[in-house]
Amino acid sequence: MTYETILYDVSENILTITLNRPDKLNAFTGTMMNELIDAFDRADADDAVRAIIVTGAGRAYCAGADLSSGAKTFDFAAREDRPDKQGTPRMAGGDIDWSHESVRDGGGRVSLRIFACLKPVISAVNGAAVGVGATMQLPMDIRIASEDARFGFVFNRRGITPEACSSWFLPRLVGISKALEWTYTGRIFSAQEALEGGLVQKVCKPGELLPAARELAREMVDNCAPVSLALTRQMMWRMLGAEHPMDAHRIDSRAIYARGASADAKEGVMSFLEKRPANFTNKVSSDMPSFFPWWEEKPYR
Amino acid sequence: MTYETILYDVSENILTITLNRPDKLNAFTGTMMNELIDAFDRADADDAVRAIIVTGAGRAYCAGADLSSGAKTFDFAAREDRPDKQGTPRMAGGDIDWSHESVRDGGGRVSLRIFACLKPVISAVNGAAVGVGATMQLPMDIRIASEDARFGFVFNRRGITPEACSSWFLPRLVGISKALEWTYTGRIFSAQEALEGGLVQKVCKPGELLPAARELAREMVDNCAPVSLALTRQMMWRMLGAEHPMDAHRIDSRAIYARGASADAKEGVMSFLEKRPANFTNKVSSDMPSFFPWWEEKPYR
Amino acid sequence: MTYETILYDVSENILTITLNRPDKLNAFTGTMMNELIDAFDRADADDAVRAIIVTGAGRAYCAGADLSSGAKTFDFAAREDRPDKQGTPRMAGGDIDWSHESVRDGGGRVSLRIFACLKPVISAVNGAAVGVGATMQLPMDIRIASEDARFGFVFNRRGITPEACSSWFLPRLVGISKALEWTYTGRIFSAQEALEGGLVQKVCKPGELLPAARELAREMVDNCAPVSLALTRQMMWRMLGAEHPMDAHRIDSRAIYARGASADAKEGVMSFLEKRPANFTNKVSSDMPSFFPWWEEKPYR
Repeated sequence: MTYETILYDVSENILTITLNRPDKLNAFTGTMMNELIDAFDRADADDAVRAIIVTGAGRAYCAGADLSSGAKTFDFAAREDRPDKQGTPRMAGGDIDWSHESVRDGGGRVSLRIFACLKPVISAVNGAAVGVGATMQLPMDIRIASEDARFGFVFNRRGITPEACSSWFLPRLVGISKALEWTYTGRIFSAQEALEGGLVQKVCKPGELLPAARELAREMVDNCAPVSLALTRQMMWRMLGAEHPMDAHRIDSRAIYARGASADAKEGVMSFLEKRPANFTNKVSSDMPSFFPWWEEKPYR
Repeated sequence: MTYETILYDVSENILTITLNRPDKLNAFTGTMMNELIDAFDRADADDAVRAIIVTGAGRAYCAGADLSSGAKTFDFAAREDRPDKQGTPRMAGGDIDWSHESVRDGGGRVSLRIFACLKPVISAVNGAAVGVGATMQLPMDIRIASEDARFGFVFNRRGITPEACSSWFLPRLVGISKALEWTYTGRIFSAQEALEGGLVQKVCKPGELLPAARELAREMVDNCAPVSLALTRQMMWRMLGAEHPMDAHRIDSRAIYARGASADAKEGVMSFLEKRPANFTNKVSSDMPSFFPWWEEKPYR
Repeated sequence: MTYETILYDVSENILTITLNRPDKLNAFTGTMMNELIDAFDRADADDAVRAIIVTGAGRAYCAGADLSSGAKTFDFAAREDRPDKQGTPRMAGGDIDWSHESVRDGGGRVSLRIFACLKPVISAVNGAAVGVGATMQLPMDIRIASEDARFGFVFNRRGITPEACSSWFLPRLVGISKALEWTYTGRIFSAQEALEGGLVQKVCKPGELLPAARELAREMVDNCAPVSLALTRQMMWRMLGAEHPMDAHRIDSRAIYARGASADAKEGVMSFLEKRPANFTNKVSSDMPSFFPWWEEKPYR
């Protein structure tokens, strides 16, 4: 499959997804949404992909929604380029049908797909990350920024609201006070402010950004079992909204029991005792335990 | 309406609420509780109020509960000044009726009212903020402190417990370990310790406190759409307790769809493309979308 | 009761639990699990214990699971030392019965017992804390580390997954990004990195570790009412997973009402007004309010 708006490159078990509309500062479109979702589907199905880096081509990461439709940009029922051209969904009686699929936010579809990913995801923020370019990164696991990066949760300046599930993710990443300061003011801020606020975990010289992201990915890929990484990702993210540690105990008991009897656990312990690198053979495509997934997906409604 | 214990002043779209019993270090009373709740009701209903600053008159912010009743201070059934004079509520059989309205904590009523507010709320902590003077600030969005500020979650030193919903708010603001350290020791601590622990976002010279709070409020009011700020506030705070990012996706999809078709969104995009200040015309009093509020209030019981 | 794998010492109202298999770097065993659970039961029942410190004997804190069973270490059905020797629990049809008690993770049993504790718990991390030696500390309230301490969430390097409810605790303590970085890489990291990441609250010279932990415990024990500490601990931890501040208001209203009428509240207010140390007389063993506990324990299933 070829993509129009992103690059998909796998090398040494690391997938790099590059947002690739550099002449448009990688502005987000419906096509980019579909291609990102497809790329994460592909990555999860491919055992050769053991970690994922997301970055942008050219000088921006993603400048946000493409504003070339002008005042109609966010008026979805009025957009001529809308595939279904069906106008505003309405219930009997005339009220808007808020639960209709066509109301769904595109950034949120991407965020939820990344949330469900089975491989570690690192964002390498090379330049401006504004609007959905900032919020789509929140369900990625770790963000590393170039000194050239800029961030902006500009929604309130455009008369709209934060999206892409950012009201769930952002306060959990940076605390409610910083989340509100950044969304209330809509200000553009530096990589340094992002670091101090906890939005990014590291700031690098521009030329050192991708090497740093790759080095971090290598540390995961070279040392850890792929099935363990997949389970860890879903356990950590899904327990972030769980009510009680018993919810975790139910799952990690199953995980330790199932994986403790696996070839990977035997190799993990023996390689440690023998002071040699481990050679894990279990695969995400075929060896996830039978209790996985342990959740039922929440539908949109 | 005139208040006895607070000042209510609106200037350039910013409301300043001043706790105003300076000879009592602005100690909290039942009257202050009622007046604060009323002031937030007024502010939400008044489109001229687009951000709120809370501060204290004189050298304290709020020294906590008024202890002039001595040993009976927290013995609500024994307090002669209690409006209903009904004594301890009891169920058939004699057990205390813990779900009775008269059991409700006054600080918690204030916290829940602030939680429901539709305008950004900045606390400008000018001096001692102790007991309920510390906990009532937690549902405010951002706290800025003077170097003269002091904080104390002193409840365990008084033989009682943290209140005003602080067991929900404090660990979310500063982490469970710092929340427990401060409440377990009951120590009085400095603005600097509050900054390092994440309780306040900034520390200023005393003379620069209110200007700094006002400057931050101006950045919100001058650049952002009031309806966007109101939705953002409720989205962020309410998703802080939500189980799954789908809960956010349901709401932000509706919010983007509804507000994307609004006059504010057209103005937000066009003013950006035309590089001029935006002039947002939608109002909180009349233009909140039809899906708002999306929750049912939880009753006390 | 005498313990084989831990020391239990009460002095000046502070219990010190010392993990005590120094020749094995205090590696975790089934016996240690049972003894830790018993020690916390004893501590909660003993009013002479008003705070708890957990540390390790010798140069390690706890090096993780005892790997002396080699490749079978985590293969619970195959372990000959397993008390019930019952093999893998199966449902009719042959699938593993994931809800069977024998699937339960031992580290998680310890974590849940500490979660339910009624006294403040301080971890004094004297040396290596790896695997379950790191995760069993997460439900403790405050962690102080010696400069000699080392941490490692090494599960993914061993082919298994994080356990001991750490998917619930760790992201809440250090944020989801740091939690994933540490578990994805499985790296061993320093006390300094633990401090910067928020896992420990303070780093000390080795000789100053236990004195610092004791000084912090003293600040709680000497100033605060034991029943207040017990209620505060459970309010804060349990509200960390609650959906809405009303959940806290229901409980802190009851707590303020009940404890406000207590001898401790009268003593707390009067000692403050009279500028003298308080002498609190209510006890955890006999004076917890009638609404406590306000929850029903979630069963394993």
